Amino acid sequence: MKSAEALSPLLQRIAQGSATTRAELARVTRLSRSSVSQRVDALLDNGLVIEEGTAPSSGGRPALRLRINAEAALILVADLGATRARFAVSDLAGAELGSSDQGQDIDQEPAKVLAWADGQLRMLLDRAGRQPADVRAIVVGLPAPVQFATGTAIKPPLMPRWDGYRVPGYFAERYAAVTLVDNDVNLMALGEHRATYPGLEHLLFIKAGTGIGCGIIVSGHLHRGADGAAGDVGHIHVPGCDAPCRCGNTGCLEAVAGGQAMASHLTAKGLAAATARDVASLATRGDTLARQEVRAAAQHIGEVLAAIVSFANPSAIVVGGSLAQLDDVLLSGIRAGIHARALPLAQRSLRIETSTLGERAGTVGAIALAQDRLLSEEGLDHLLRIRR
Amino acid sequence: MKSAEALSPLLQRIAQGSATTRAELARVTRLSRSSVSQRVDALLDNGLVIEEGTAPSSGGRPALRLRINAEAALILVADLGATRARFAVSDLAGAELGSSDQGQDIDQEPAKVLAWADGQLRMLLDRAGRQPADVRAIVVGLPAPVQFATGTAIKPPLMPRWDGYRVPGYFAERYAAVTLVDNDVNLMALGEHRATYPGLEHLLFIKAGTGIGCGIIVSGHLHRGADGAAGDVGHIHVPGCDAPCRCGNTGCLEAVAGGQAMASHLTAKGLAAATARDVASLATRGDTLARQEVRAAAQHIGEVLAAIVSFANPSAIVVGGSLAQLDDVLLSGIRAGIHARALPLAQRSLRIETSTLGERAGTVGAIALAQDRLLSEEGLDHLLRIRR
Repeated sequence: MKSAEALSPLLQRIAQGSATTRAELARVTRLSRSSVSQRVDALLDNGLVIEEGTAPSSGGRPALRLRINAEAALILVADLGATRARFAVSDLAGAELGSSDQGQDIDQEPAKVLAWADGQLRMLLDRAGRQPADVRAIVVGLPAPVQFATGTAIKPPLMPRWDGYRVPGYFAERYAAVTLVDNDVNLMALGEHRATYPGLEHLLFIKAGTGIGCGIIVSGHLHRGADGAAGDVGHIHVPGCDAPCRCGNTGCLEAVAGGQAMASHLTAKGLAAATARDVASLATRGDTLARQEVRAAAQHIGEVLAAIVSFANPSAIVVGGSLAQLDDVLLSGIRAGIHARALPLAQRSLRIETSTLGERAGTVGAIALAQDRLLSEEGLDHLLRIRR
Repeated sequence: MKSAEALSPLLQRIAQGSATTRAELARVTRLSRSSVSQRVDALLDNGLVIEEGTAPSSGGRPALRLRINAEAALILVADLGATRARFAVSDLAGAELGSSDQGQDIDQEPAKVLAWADGQLRMLLDRAGRQPADVRAIVVGLPAPVQFATGTAIKPPLMPRWDGYRVPGYFAERYAAVTLVDNDVNLMALGEHRATYPGLEHLLFIKAGTGIGCGIIVSGHLHRGADGAAGDVGHIHVPGCDAPCRCGNTGCLEAVAGGQAMASHLTAKGLAAATARDVASLATRGDTLARQEVRAAAQHIGEVLAAIVSFANPSAIVVGGSLAQLDDVLLSGIRAGIHARALPLAQRSLRIETSTLGERAGTVGAIALAQDRLLSEEGLDHLLRIRR
């Protein structure tokens, strides 16, 4: 049997669709035809690819097209937010076999939250007629800074009981699967990049809701930073603002433009609003005060983004989270804030858009993360070992 | 003759020292021994590597060690600043064969500046007893946003006559060499990363002097941004500041903490200072007002860096430029500014240091950039074509 390191490059090309016949694979990998044939046979024997139909040929026998065997692995996703969670099951080709949304409270014992999440995932598996034994990757999104290499939340303000808890340990006893843990906004950035802007090199995803966070794609890859804390923009100082923040500082972006801040400004004006979602639904229904509030918050977000645009010079900023449904007010405010302060050159080719995936951005990103891992040398080694 | 694409991976490993015998090369490239031998023969035939001494062997014939042939190519560097330029000649192994420093004015016709720079480089070549015909790479650093792919300065505020001018065209007629053009602070970041912090994934280099700029290393590579404008931090709004800036905005970092701003603050207090260098030399001589001024400027730089640290979560910040000689005052001010506002997690493993390379950072980075290009598939193709 060929090793994962020999097979992974071929499998990745087949999955991307960039080379799907033996001849194409030989051309792009610069391996000999016989070497490619041996490796493709190993992939077929292990049920990782299947042959289907024929490709146009320039003479001789028509070539057989290869594609990834979607049935070779199941992927589970638990995208856990502060107050809501989204679950999904997909196959190895990334097709969603089922999903669900649930209210939840993340600030509990991690084992309790994960047991509940696992129950939700098993329900989805059951409904799709699939077996837990076929799960090969699990991705957990958390509203926290995450040390990706170990799958550990680090000093998470919204969920202090999770500090240092290794999420992969929980699933290791229950599934023959790799478990990946990432920050929820990182997953959203990855999802939006893969699904909507795969050709853009540098993209920022801003989640505007209760908290304000940022996922960063640099050269097509997630930038997590030295401590998994990259993109934590909620406590950047907004020039000219001094509202006190729960972090102990003043003038933080969240204290000025976060869901809580907007809701309490509106409450002070006699409206009933407790969360970012309340503010969003008031504004959606056309309430002038709520729309003004969202517009002001968006402009403050834009002022902070102006500094970030000058620093990072991204190709696109995609805005998601519960405020994103208000795309007219939100985007015009953000654009105004950026326009007033960012360097003209850095704005020249900058696109500012709302998320096309909406609530699904996190699960789409999580599935992409799992696929990348399963098709990598390390992930494929795991798949092959389980088959032996 | 073997093609560049077959030879480049071997040459890179030999240059890095990560595999320097035929056996080691076969192991890391997973090519067959005979295939490696053929390729090494091609490298020897083309004068790109040489054999020297023997490596310890576990039996049988002792293996011959390979190293890059330093004489295979010359590299020229013109690191052009606003008011000073540094020139260097190196061999393919990166050893400097000569260097010089000169005063200059960048804001002239580009062809005039480049003709002068070329004269300086030819003097260095001559002094080192080398021929212009052996030059294979030229790197030009500019105090401007640069579109790296075309070697063009874009809307450069300090040197408007260079807007859209393609620097490589100037040298194409004069040398059988590739010409690379980059922002001067990008080159400094690259130099400091290669020479001092090669193991760190994410590094920021801050140049504090007349202007204030930032070079960004992400995952070991320069991040230039969508328009070559990344790191342009001089016009980020400093919270609480509203000094007018030449860009038309108020409260920009350069208007508060740039060389001109510091000098004019000191002039208003009766001291003679016109530039960042004047301020630095007053402060070095112990002048209290100048030291206070540097400390205040450093703290403002730190306040802007606090936002950047929260966003990017770098492993290290290296400070260079003409103020860097004041490392005690400068670093303590920057640390105070960062400490007051950046997220604790993002500061946890953050190192803040002054440049170890000083004035040489840019040329060291330029040489590294040239080496990377010459040993790449594209660069090696160029080297081989010239030999034919």
